[in-house]
Amino acid sequence: MFFITGNKGKLEEVKDILGDVEQLEMDLPEVQGIDAREIVRAKLTEAQKHRKGDFIVEDTSLYLDCLNGLPGPLIKWFLKTVGNEGLFRIAERLGEKGAEARTIVGLAKDGEIFFFEGSLKGKITEPRGTGFGWDPVFQPKGSGKTFGELSKEEKNSISMRRKALEKLRDFLTA
Amino acid sequence: MFFITGNKGKLEEVKDILGDVEQLEMDLPEVQGIDAREIVRAKLTEAQKHRKGDFIVEDTSLYLDCLNGLPGPLIKWFLKTVGNEGLFRIAERLGEKGAEARTIVGLAKDGEIFFFEGSLKGKITEPRGTGFGWDPVFQPKGSGKTFGELSKEEKNSISMRRKALEKLRDFLTA
Repeated sequence: MFFITGNKGKLEEVKDILGDVEQLEMDLPEVQGIDAREIVRAKLTEAQKHRKGDFIVEDTSLYLDCLNGLPGPLIKWFLKTVGNEGLFRIAERLGEKGAEARTIVGLAKDGEIFFFEGSLKGKITEPRGTGFGWDPVFQPKGSGKTFGELSKEEKNSISMRRKALEKLRDFLTA
Repeated sequence: MFFITGNKGKLEEVKDILGDVEQLEMDLPEVQGIDAREIVRAKLTEAQKHRKGDFIVEDTSLYLDCLNGLPGPLIKWFLKTVGNEGLFRIAERLGEKGAEARTIVGLAKDGEIFFFEGSLKGKITEPRGTGFGWDPVFQPKGSGKTFGELSKEEKNSISMRRKALEKLRDFLTA
């Protein structure tokens, strides 16, 4: 089984939960849109054209209540233009700080595609801590720390990605 | 010369300025991103794979000062999620209403790709009038009316699309 990613951190997290998975670096086109499943489905379909095997692709997106769910999968463009400071400023000025982090894991196996979802509610805060992407502005519900302030182990133990991957693991071992 | 669009209004505007242009409806994949030229380039490149000929593709995007240029080409997803009311609310709450409408026209001719740009400064207002897409919230500088309140003729006479198309016309007739 191949996990398609260029991200070593995600690969470790996947191996930690699923065991033996092989990393595959493949430059897959990302269809435009706000539907994470369609993005994952398109990548899996494309991967299957290039080689045989079972594939895993994941998408992790951030959905802001104050923007009716934007940016979602468009988060990378928000980070690029307004950054974490901008995300916080938008949520604060619009007066609604709720957010949800959501991972969709897609599995292409024996000609079929399956999806597994994990989500984590939280809120947008002033940037605190370090970490990757929007980690510094996302504070999970029930925690006093942002993802950027949690250790990698703490974050991975509660993350939306873990929830999705555990569902995939249960599916594979059922 | 083919103008690739599914939009009759845009076709008329193009014919009005360029004269004899043939409409071609072709479902071209839109690459994700905030770079309008890359989006237009990718569409032209794809079109050339499917048939011979010269092609025109256009992208018209809205750039908000308060979001450092977002949504740009991502405007369709903003309209889908927060709508015109949301665009206005964001600009108002962030305290910066300036905006720019920009059209990129791409021409694929004799194996080369050329770009022509037209832009129009303005501001985001409360939705007024009718029209297409974000017409009701974009008020061009120097005008007391939004695109949604201007007649089609008034709008087309000052539009960013006309500016870009006139540059293309000058290029073709030079």
